[in-house]
Amino acid sequence: MTMHDTIRQLAVDCKQAARTLATLPTVVKNRVLAGMAEGIMAQRDFIRLENDKDLAAGRDKGLSSAMLDRLALSDKVIGSMVQGLHEVAALPDPVGEIADLVKRPSGIMVGRMRVPLGVVGMIYESRPNVTVDAAALCLKAGNGVFLRGGSEAIYSNLALAKVLQDVLVAERINPAAIQIMPTTDREAVNAMLTLEEQIDLIIPRGGEGLIRFVAENSRIPVLKHYKGVCHVFVDRDADLDMAVRIVMNGKTQRPGVCNATEALLVHRDAADAFLPKVGVALAGAGVEIRGCAATQKLWPATVPAQDTDWGCEFLALILAVKVVDDVDAAMDHIARHGSQHTEAIVTSGYANAQRFLREVDASSVMVNASTRFADGGQYGLGAEIGISTTKLHAYGPMGLKELTTQKFIVYGEGEVRS
Amino acid sequence: MTMHDTIRQLAVDCKQAARTLATLPTVVKNRVLAGMAEGIMAQRDFIRLENDKDLAAGRDKGLSSAMLDRLALSDKVIGSMVQGLHEVAALPDPVGEIADLVKRPSGIMVGRMRVPLGVVGMIYESRPNVTVDAAALCLKAGNGVFLRGGSEAIYSNLALAKVLQDVLVAERINPAAIQIMPTTDREAVNAMLTLEEQIDLIIPRGGEGLIRFVAENSRIPVLKHYKGVCHVFVDRDADLDMAVRIVMNGKTQRPGVCNATEALLVHRDAADAFLPKVGVALAGAGVEIRGCAATQKLWPATVPAQDTDWGCEFLALILAVKVVDDVDAAMDHIARHGSQHTEAIVTSGYANAQRFLREVDASSVMVNASTRFADGGQYGLGAEIGISTTKLHAYGPMGLKELTTQKFIVYGEGEVRS
Repeated sequence: MTMHDTIRQLAVDCKQAARTLATLPTVVKNRVLAGMAEGIMAQRDFIRLENDKDLAAGRDKGLSSAMLDRLALSDKVIGSMVQGLHEVAALPDPVGEIADLVKRPSGIMVGRMRVPLGVVGMIYESRPNVTVDAAALCLKAGNGVFLRGGSEAIYSNLALAKVLQDVLVAERINPAAIQIMPTTDREAVNAMLTLEEQIDLIIPRGGEGLIRFVAENSRIPVLKHYKGVCHVFVDRDADLDMAVRIVMNGKTQRPGVCNATEALLVHRDAADAFLPKVGVALAGAGVEIRGCAATQKLWPATVPAQDTDWGCEFLALILAVKVVDDVDAAMDHIARHGSQHTEAIVTSGYANAQRFLREVDASSVMVNASTRFADGGQYGLGAEIGISTTKLHAYGPMGLKELTTQKFIVYGEGEVRS
Repeated sequence: MTMHDTIRQLAVDCKQAARTLATLPTVVKNRVLAGMAEGIMAQRDFIRLENDKDLAAGRDKGLSSAMLDRLALSDKVIGSMVQGLHEVAALPDPVGEIADLVKRPSGIMVGRMRVPLGVVGMIYESRPNVTVDAAALCLKAGNGVFLRGGSEAIYSNLALAKVLQDVLVAERINPAAIQIMPTTDREAVNAMLTLEEQIDLIIPRGGEGLIRFVAENSRIPVLKHYKGVCHVFVDRDADLDMAVRIVMNGKTQRPGVCNATEALLVHRDAADAFLPKVGVALAGAGVEIRGCAATQKLWPATVPAQDTDWGCEFLALILAVKVVDDVDAAMDHIARHGSQHTEAIVTSGYANAQRFLREVDASSVMVNASTRFADGGQYGLGAEIGISTTKLHAYGPMGLKELTTQKFIVYGEGEVRS
């Protein structure tokens, strides 16, 4: 059997198993999730041992301490995986829900029933906890999952998947419902991305390079975001203390994540008062300001911005700052340089708040709140399987509901068309 | 400028125009739609003249009379295009609707606002009325549209698009919101399908060949259905008169469309009574039965079914018939041979009705109703832009709502994350 055939067979088996998952009672799915939490706790020594192999190999390869940190299955990480499983078990089951059931003039009753997508392919990088989080969400939504983690976490991922599959077997569920790529070969990913008959959706999570690779090579629909270049626009009449809080939180609370604030736009009428005020706060937190000419005048410590600073995802204590003429100029700048992730306005004006919400094309648009809120947990979706900045199917943080679709159902009493 | 550049520029202009459309007030959109209806009536002589060129060319090329019939813009077709425009104007505007607005523990209010997709690419075959129907639905949903009709309808399509664009100009709306492919060159379609930065969604409508070509060559997401192989399963305890009505309506009311019934599955305990009964009715309507061995025994006029008859979209007065052991065997047959379009059960049993609805994976699943009801109009969606049998974004008939997506909006009062 060639490698392509092997990968294909894994996907065929997963699709077969998913047909059963689609009709599994909620109580069984929740029991499986609780069993997985128990299994991970019971098998933690085995998991640790396998994780140590990855860590040792990582040290040999000279991975950075940040990378090794992401790789390590510490007590804390294992605890949070276990808690995550319990949280997913506690979420309402979206499958089977019937919405919009209406009686039509012909006499038929038409509604939409929520159903699983089928098989979800997850392609991700170093954090092995994604293995457990993704498997749990896909299972709860009634989907099979085909996991392909980073090569540096292969032992950890195989160990975690084994623990999860053992729980499926104990519950007499086909363990192929959770498949894991057995090889770290890059060609295997290419093979996976051609299996449009078996895999319904691909979700890549990781750096922009990985995501572009997946998007460009997949024949299967991909839900993804390349990056988060989130702007905050401080309007003429903004509450300046509030604006400082929102900018500081967005930039400094966790600068390395996709919903961190990367750029600040300031209405020219607010710039005189606001820029020195926020400049002091940012300088105090060690944030480098890269600003336009007007910003440089009002805050002398500003580094002159280069063209490449607009639309840049710094993921660091760096903030691009520009003074703009009005809300239209701010929205134009965002349309040109934003990444359709998250955009925020700080304003006390009703009209501009409503316009910004309506007119800015981004998956999250906010008034008077930190961009850091763009998150499935903060939005009440439960857990998050990813974020989409493409508009088909899902736009923004994706939870259980986004792992399902709706089919039409018809209750008739013998109606025919005339 | 190369042809690829020309096509790209049309799409760039369309995307630019779509940004304005996205925020157009409902009253303006409805006025434009009414203006288009007027424009078509006022310009009917011009439209007819151009249509005559296509008809003459079609006759020269030896098109069938059925093809010429689909191409002709008769009074009736023009009347139905005009009525379609008024109907789309009368539909509720989905854009701007805010759903699920909830207060989160952090204090922020989070909801989902319905927004346009951006630019929709329509690729279709001979019927020029699709030009008007698709433009109207896309406009109402706030999308730009890039139209590429069949080469045999090029003069008609260009004429219709010109009339629609003139109305946009009169309303001071950028006419690039409705673009039409100026050439019938096949290469131009290939160019269009690469424009993922400008076009958000492709909807192909036509024969399976066209749709497969589009799906295989597009870098843009495609919503499509290849074919409709719709089954009716007559359960053991079905009301047999009702079952005959449903089968006859599904097979004979309009055999050439995708929601026509192509196959009949009969529970073995119902076969003795049902097959002679439905056989008489089908024979009376000139329907050829291609059946399994058991069917042949109970209805001697049966043509023995070949393997290729299962899962075949006949689009003609032919019906594949198979006797099955039970509802599970019926659902297995459907899983193997169905096309995820529309599947129906005729039953008087509560349990099997509910199981069939829940377990059959198709975009429309029906109890005791004709498969011919699988239609946007019949479901109350208003007009239909197409049918999707893929699960991402839309599954089943697609109306205005399916031409939009939802973004997250956040109303804050200065909240930051802790």
